[in-house]
Amino acid sequence: MEVFEVIAKRHSYRGPYLDRNIPREDLRLIVQAGIQAPSGTNAQTTEFVIVDDAELVAQIAALHPTNTAMRQAKAYIACLIDLRPEAVYEGYSFQVEDCAAAAENMLLAITALGYATVWVDGWLRIKSNGKKIGEMLGIPQNKLVRIILPLGVPAEHWAQREKKQFEQRAWYNRYQTG
Amino acid sequence: MEVFEVIAKRHSYRGPYLDRNIPREDLRLIVQAGIQAPSGTNAQTTEFVIVDDAELVAQIAALHPTNTAMRQAKAYIACLIDLRPEAVYEGYSFQVEDCAAAAENMLLAITALGYATVWVDGWLRIKSNGKKIGEMLGIPQNKLVRIILPLGVPAEHWAQREKKQFEQRAWYNRYQTG
Repeated sequence: MEVFEVIAKRHSYRGPYLDRNIPREDLRLIVQAGIQAPSGTNAQTTEFVIVDDAELVAQIAALHPTNTAMRQAKAYIACLIDLRPEAVYEGYSFQVEDCAAAAENMLLAITALGYATVWVDGWLRIKSNGKKIGEMLGIPQNKLVRIILPLGVPAEHWAQREKKQFEQRAWYNRYQTG
Repeated sequence: MEVFEVIAKRHSYRGPYLDRNIPREDLRLIVQAGIQAPSGTNAQTTEFVIVDDAELVAQIAALHPTNTAMRQAKAYIACLIDLRPEAVYEGYSFQVEDCAAAAENMLLAITALGYATVWVDGWLRIKSNGKKIGEMLGIPQNKLVRIILPLGVPAEHWAQREKKQFEQRAWYNRYQTG
Protein backbone atom coordinates (compact mmCIF):
# COMPACT_ATOMS: atom_id res chain seq x y z
CA MET A 1 0.00 0.00 0.00
CA GLU A 2 1.23 3.49 -0.87
CA VAL A 3 2.80 5.24 2.12
CA PHE A 4 0.63 8.37 2.19
CA GLU A 5 -2.48 6.18 1.94
CA VAL A 6 -1.26 4.07 4.87
CA ILE A 7 -0.52 7.19 6.95
CA ALA A 8 -4.06 8.46 6.28
CA LYS A 9 -5.67 5.09 7.04
CA ARG A 10 -3.74 4.30 10.23
CA HIS A 11 -6.00 4.63 13.24
CA SER A 12 -6.35 3.46 16.80
CA TYR A 13 -8.61 0.44 16.99
CA ARG A 14 -10.27 -0.63 20.23
CA GLY A 15 -12.98 -2.81 18.69
CA PRO A 16 -13.49 -6.57 18.30
CA TYR A 17 -11.32 -8.87 16.17
CA LEU A 18 -12.32 -11.72 13.89
CA ASP A 19 -11.40 -15.20 15.07
CA ARG A 20 -8.39 -15.44 12.76
CA ASN A 21 -4.84 -16.12 13.79
CA ILE A 22 -1.96 -14.07 12.47
CA PRO A 23 0.71 -15.97 10.53
CA ARG A 24 4.24 -15.62 11.90
CA GLU A 25 5.30 -14.42 8.46
CA ASP A 26 3.15 -11.31 8.98
CA LEU A 27 4.25 -10.84 12.61
CA ARG A 28 7.82 -10.91 11.42
CA LEU A 29 7.17 -8.37 8.65
CA ILE A 30 5.58 -6.03 11.20
CA VAL A 31 8.43 -6.30 13.71
CA GLN A 32 10.99 -5.99 10.92
CA ALA A 33 9.42 -2.59 10.14
CA GLY A 34 10.03 -1.68 13.79
CA ILE A 35 13.63 -2.85 13.58
CA GLN A 36 14.18 -0.59 10.57
CA ALA A 37 13.08 2.54 12.44
CA PRO A 38 15.73 5.12 13.27
CA SER A 39 17.27 5.29 16.75
CA GLY A 40 19.50 7.85 18.43
CA THR A 41 23.12 7.16 17.33
CA ASN A 42 21.73 3.98 15.70
CA ALA A 43 21.86 2.37 19.15
CA GLN A 44 18.83 0.17 18.25
CA THR A 45 17.66 0.08 21.82
CA THR A 46 14.12 -1.25 21.36
CA GLU A 47 13.57 -4.99 21.71
CA PHE A 48 10.43 -6.89 20.87
CA VAL A 49 8.59 -9.87 22.30
CA ILE A 50 5.91 -11.19 19.96
CA VAL A 51 3.21 -13.02 21.88
CA ASP A 52 1.20 -15.58 19.90
CA ASP A 53 1.03 -18.48 22.36
CA ALA A 54 -2.68 -18.96 23.13
CA GLU A 55 -2.19 -19.31 26.87
CA LEU A 56 0.01 -16.22 27.17
CA VAL A 57 -2.37 -14.26 24.91
CA ALA A 58 -5.25 -15.16 27.24
CA GLN A 59 -3.26 -14.08 30.31
CA ILE A 60 -2.49 -10.66 28.84
CA ALA A 61 -6.06 -10.26 27.55
CA ALA A 62 -7.43 -10.87 31.04
CA LEU A 63 -5.55 -7.86 32.42
CA HIS A 64 -7.43 -5.17 30.50
CA PRO A 65 -10.98 -4.54 31.71
CA THR A 66 -12.33 -2.33 28.93
CA ASN A 67 -10.32 -2.23 25.70
CA THR A 68 -11.94 -4.80 23.39
CA ALA A 69 -8.89 -4.96 21.11
CA MET A 70 -6.69 -5.77 24.12
CA ARG A 71 -9.21 -8.37 25.29
CA GLN A 72 -9.65 -10.09 21.91
CA ALA A 73 -6.19 -9.80 20.40
CA LYS A 74 -4.80 -12.83 18.56
CA ALA A 75 -1.26 -11.66 19.24
CA TYR A 76 0.63 -8.84 20.93
CA ILE A 77 3.88 -7.08 20.25
CA ALA A 78 5.57 -5.92 23.45
CA CYS A 79 8.21 -3.22 22.93
CA LEU A 80 10.97 -3.14 25.55
CA ILE A 81 13.41 -0.47 26.59
CA ASP A 82 15.85 -0.28 29.49
CA LEU A 83 14.49 0.68 32.89
CA ARG A 84 17.48 3.03 33.27
CA PRO A 85 18.42 3.96 29.71
CA GLU A 86 22.11 4.53 29.06
CA ALA A 87 23.24 7.91 27.72
CA VAL A 88 24.45 7.74 24.12
CA TYR A 89 24.99 11.44 23.31
CA GLU A 90 26.12 14.26 25.63
CA GLY A 91 24.48 12.62 28.62
CA TYR A 92 21.17 11.98 26.86
CA SER A 93 19.32 8.77 26.11
CA PHE A 94 16.79 8.48 23.29
CA GLN A 95 15.18 5.17 24.16
CA VAL A 96 11.67 6.61 24.50
CA GLU A 97 11.95 8.23 21.08
CA ASP A 98 13.52 5.08 19.58
CA CYS A 99 10.65 2.98 20.89
CA ALA A 100 8.03 5.43 19.63
CA ALA A 101 9.55 5.54 16.14
CA ALA A 102 9.62 1.73 16.04
CA ALA A 103 5.98 1.63 17.18
CA GLU A 104 4.92 4.08 14.48
CA ASN A 105 6.62 2.03 11.75
CA MET A 106 4.82 -1.05 13.07
CA LEU A 107 1.44 0.72 13.14
CA LEU A 108 1.91 1.52 9.46
CA ALA A 109 2.97 -2.04 8.64
CA ILE A 110 -0.04 -3.38 10.58
CA THR A 111 -2.37 -1.07 8.64
CA ALA A 112 -0.83 -2.02 5.28
CA LEU A 113 -1.28 -5.74 6.01
CA GLY A 114 -4.98 -5.34 6.87
CA TYR A 115 -4.71 -5.71 10.65
CA ALA A 116 -5.69 -3.16 13.25
CA THR A 117 -4.17 -2.15 16.56
CA VAL A 118 -3.92 0.58 19.16
CA TRP A 119 -0.76 2.01 20.76
CA VAL A 120 -1.12 1.00 24.43
CA ASP A 121 1.31 2.87 26.64
CA GLY A 122 0.00 4.72 29.72
CA TRP A 123 -2.04 1.69 30.79
CA LEU A 124 1.20 -0.28 31.21
CA ARG A 125 2.32 2.23 33.84
CA ILE A 126 -0.70 1.83 36.11
CA LYS A 127 -1.57 -1.06 38.41
CA SER A 128 1.77 -2.72 37.52
CA ASN A 129 0.30 -3.90 34.22
CA GLY A 130 3.61 -3.54 32.38
CA LYS A 131 5.46 -5.31 35.19
CA LYS A 132 2.98 -8.20 35.16
CA ILE A 133 3.33 -8.61 31.40
CA GLY A 134 7.10 -8.37 31.66
CA GLU A 135 7.09 -11.21 34.19
CA MET A 136 4.90 -13.37 31.91
CA LEU A 137 7.42 -12.85 29.10
CA GLY A 138 10.48 -13.45 31.24
CA ILE A 139 12.04 -10.04 30.67
CA PRO A 140 14.97 -9.18 32.94
CA GLN A 141 14.68 -6.74 35.85
CA ASN A 142 16.49 -4.01 33.94
CA LYS A 143 13.94 -3.98 31.09
CA LEU A 144 10.52 -2.39 30.84
CA VAL A 145 7.51 -3.06 28.59
CA ARG A 146 7.07 0.49 27.34
CA ILE A 147 4.48 -0.05 24.60
CA ILE A 148 2.25 -3.00 23.72
CA LEU A 149 0.29 -3.46 20.50
CA PRO A 150 -2.68 -5.85 20.36
CA LEU A 151 -3.14 -7.40 16.93
CA GLY A 152 -5.93 -8.94 14.93
CA VAL A 153 -8.13 -8.67 11.87
CA PRO A 154 -10.69 -5.98 12.72
CA ALA A 155 -14.34 -7.02 12.80
CA GLU A 156 -15.53 -3.41 12.54
CA HIS A 157 -14.63 -0.47 10.35
CA TRP A 158 -12.96 2.32 12.30
CA ALA A 159 -11.21 5.38 10.91
CA GLN A 160 -8.54 7.84 11.96
CA ARG A 161 -9.86 10.28 14.55
CA GLU A 162 -10.30 13.81 13.35
CA LYS A 163 -7.13 15.88 13.41
CA LYS A 164 -6.86 19.64 13.74
CA GLN A 165 -6.34 21.51 10.49
CA PHE A 166 -2.82 22.15 9.18
CA GLU A 167 -3.25 25.88 9.92
CA GLN A 168 -3.92 25.14 13.59
CA ARG A 169 -0.72 23.16 14.10
CA ALA A 170 1.79 24.35 11.50
CA TRP A 171 3.17 27.70 10.36
CA TYR A 172 5.82 29.01 8.03
CA ASN A 173 8.89 30.70 9.50
CA ARG A 174 7.19 32.18 12.55
CA TYR A 175 5.13 30.52 15.27
CA GLN A 176 1.37 31.05 14.87
CA THR A 177 1.74 33.86 12.37
CA GLY A 178 3.61 32.50 9.33
CA MET B 1 5.96 4.59 -2.92
CA GLU B 2 4.97 1.34 -1.22
CA VAL B 3 5.17 1.60 2.56
CA PHE B 4 7.54 -1.33 3.21
CA GLU B 5 9.87 0.00 0.50
CA VAL B 6 9.85 3.45 2.11
CA ILE B 7 10.57 1.95 5.56
CA ALA B 8 13.55 0.06 4.10
CA LYS B 9 14.85 3.10 2.18
CA ARG B 10 14.51 5.65 5.00
CA HIS B 11 17.91 6.60 6.34
CA SER B 12 19.70 9.36 8.19
CA TYR B 13 21.36 11.72 5.73
CA ARG B 14 24.14 14.06 6.80
CA GLY B 15 25.54 14.75 3.33
CA PRO B 16 25.29 17.67 0.88
CA TYR B 17 22.11 18.83 -0.84
CA LEU B 18 21.55 19.96 -4.41
CA ASP B 19 20.81 23.65 -4.90
CA ARG B 20 17.09 23.08 -5.34
CA ASN B 21 14.34 24.66 -3.31
CA ILE B 22 11.48 22.63 -1.90
CA PRO B 23 7.99 23.62 -3.07
CA ARG B 24 5.57 24.50 -0.28
CA GLU B 25 3.23 21.88 -1.69
CA ASP B 26 5.77 19.21 -0.72
CA LEU B 27 6.53 20.80 2.66
CA ARG B 28 2.84 20.74 3.40
CA LEU B 29 2.48 17.09 2.38
CA ILE B 30 5.36 16.18 4.70
CA VAL B 31 3.96 18.07 7.70
CA GLN B 32 0.48 16.74 6.99
CA ALA B 33 1.97 13.24 7.44
CA GLY B 34 3.22 14.40 10.85
CA ILE B 35 -0.20 15.80 11.75
CA GLN B 36 -1.75 12.41 10.95
CA ALA B 37 0.49 10.55 13.40
CA PRO B 38 -1.11 9.14 16.54
CA SER B 39 -0.85 10.97 19.87
CA GLY B 40 -1.71 9.96 23.42
CA THR B 41 -5.48 10.46 23.92
CA ASN B 42 -5.43 12.15 20.47
CA ALA B 43 -4.18 15.28 22.22
CA GLN B 44 -2.23 16.29 19.06
CA THR B 45 0.42 18.02 21.08
CA THR B 46 3.14 18.45 18.45
CA GLU B 47 3.28 21.73 16.55
CA PHE B 48 5.42 22.49 13.53
CA VAL B 49 7.29 25.50 12.21
CA ILE B 50 8.38 25.08 8.61
CA VAL B 51 11.39 27.23 7.84
CA ASP B 52 11.91 28.15 4.17
CA ASP B 53 12.80 31.82 4.41
CA ALA B 54 16.34 32.13 3.02
CA GLU B 55 17.58 34.40 5.79
CA LEU B 56 16.20 32.21 8.59
CA VAL B 57 17.51 29.08 6.87
CA ALA B 58 20.99 30.64 6.79
CA GLN B 59 20.79 31.56 10.48
CA ILE B 60 19.91 28.02 11.49
CA ALA B 61 22.50 26.52 9.14
CA ALA B 62 25.21 28.66 10.73
CA LEU B 63 24.60 27.05 14.15
CA HIS B 64 25.73 23.53 13.26
CA PRO B 65 29.48 23.13 12.83
CA THR B 66 29.69 19.65 11.32
CA ASN B 67 26.47 18.19 9.95
CA THR B 68 26.50 18.97 6.21
CA ALA B 69 22.76 18.36 5.85
CA MET B 70 22.09 20.86 8.64
CA ARG B 71 24.48 23.35 7.02
CA GLN B 72 23.11 23.02 3.46
CA ALA B 73 19.40 22.47 4.12
CA LYS B 74 16.95 24.30 1.87
CA ALA B 75 14.30 24.13 4.56
CA TYR B 76 13.79 22.85 8.10
CA ILE B 77 10.86 21.45 9.98
CA ALA B 78 11.00 22.33 13.68
CA CYS B 79 8.79 20.13 15.89
CA LEU B 80 7.57 21.76 19.09
CA ILE B 81 6.27 20.36 22.34
CA ASP B 82 5.47 22.01 25.65
CA LEU B 83 8.34 22.76 27.99
CA ARG B 84 6.22 21.35 30.84
CA PRO B 85 3.87 18.87 29.15
CA GLU B 86 0.42 18.55 30.65
CA ALA B 87 -0.73 15.15 31.90
CA VAL B 88 -3.46 13.61 29.75
CA TYR B 89 -3.80 10.14 31.31
CA GLU B 90 -3.35 9.07 34.95
CA GLY B 91 -0.76 11.75 35.55
CA TYR B 92 1.24 10.96 32.42
CA SER B 93 2.09 13.06 29.40
CA PHE B 94 2.99 11.53 26.04
CA GLN B 95 4.36 14.57 24.24
CA VAL B 96 7.80 13.06 23.62
CA GLU B 97 6.21 9.97 22.09
CA ASP B 98 3.71 12.09 20.10
CA CYS B 99 6.55 14.16 18.67
CA ALA B 100 8.62 11.08 17.81
CA ALA B 101 5.69 9.42 16.02
CA ALA B 102 5.08 12.61 14.03
CA ALA B 103 8.78 12.78 13.15
CA GLU B 104 8.81 9.17 11.95
CA ASN B 105 5.79 9.76 9.70
CA MET B 106 7.56 12.80 8.26
CA LEU B 107 10.80 10.87 7.67
CA LEU B 108 8.82 8.38 5.61
CA ALA B 109 7.03 11.13 3.68
CA ILE B 110 10.38 12.86 3.02
CA THR B 111 11.84 9.59 1.72
CA ALA B 112 8.84 8.89 -0.50
CA LEU B 113 9.06 12.36 -2.07
CA GLY B 114 12.76 11.96 -2.91
CA TYR B 115 14.20 14.24 -0.25
CA ALA B 116 16.59 13.25 2.52
CA THR B 117 16.91 14.30 6.14
CA VAL B 118 18.24 13.33 9.53
CA TRP B 119 16.40 13.37 12.86
CA VAL B 120 18.25 16.04 14.87
CA ASP B 121 17.39 15.91 18.55
CA GLY B 122 20.18 15.74 21.14
CA TRP B 123 22.07 18.59 19.44
CA LEU B 124 19.14 20.91 20.21
CA ARG B 125 19.69 20.27 23.93
CA ILE B 126 23.32 21.35 24.00
CA LYS B 127 24.74 24.87 23.80
CA SER B 128 21.19 26.29 23.86
CA ASN B 129 20.81 25.39 20.16
CA GLY B 130 17.12 24.60 20.53
CA LYS B 131 16.52 27.77 22.50
CA LYS B 132 18.30 29.89 19.88
CA ILE B 133 16.24 28.36 17.08
CA GLY B 134 13.05 28.80 19.13
CA GLU B 135 13.84 32.49 19.51
CA MET B 136 14.43 32.87 15.75
CA LEU B 137 11.01 31.34 15.11
CA GLY B 138 9.21 33.36 17.77
CA ILE B 139 8.04 30.39 19.80
CA PRO B 140 6.63 31.21 23.24
CA GLN B 141 8.55 30.57 26.47
CA ASN B 142 6.44 27.53 27.28
CA LYS B 143 7.37 25.70 24.07
CA LEU B 144 10.48 23.77 23.12
CA VAL B 145 12.02 22.78 19.78
CA ARG B 146 12.30 19.07 20.46
CA ILE B 147 13.27 17.78 17.01
CA ILE B 148 14.43 19.53 13.84
CA LEU B 149 14.61 18.01 10.37
CA PRO B 150 16.83 19.57 7.69
CA LEU B 151 15.45 19.08 4.20
CA GLY B 152 16.79 19.01 0.69
CA VAL B 153 17.36 16.91 -2.42
CA PRO B 154 20.36 14.71 -1.59
CA ALA B 155 23.46 15.14 -3.73
CA GLU B 156 24.88 11.79 -2.63
CA HIS B 157 23.49 8.29 -2.31
CA TRP B 158 23.29 7.14 1.29
CA ALA B 159 21.52 4.07 2.63
CA GLN B 160 19.98 2.87 5.87
CA ARG B 161 22.64 1.94 8.39
CA GLU B 162 22.97 -1.72 9.13
CA LYS B 163 20.49 -3.03 11.67
CA LYS B 164 20.92 -6.01 13.95
CA GLN B 165 19.23 -9.18 12.79
CA PHE B 166 15.63 -9.91 13.76
CA GLU B 167 16.84 -12.76 16.01
CA GLN B 168 19.01 -10.34 18.01
CA ARG B 169 16.15 -7.97 18.82
CA ALA B 170 12.93 -9.99 18.69
CA TRP B 171 11.66 -13.23 20.19
CA TYR B 172 8.44 -15.18 20.36
CA ASN B 173 6.64 -15.45 23.71
CA ARG B 174 9.71 -15.38 25.91
CA TYR B 175 12.57 -12.86 26.11
CA GLN B 176 15.73 -14.03 24.36
CA THR B 177 14.65 -17.64 24.13
CA GLY B 178 11.45 -17.80 22.06
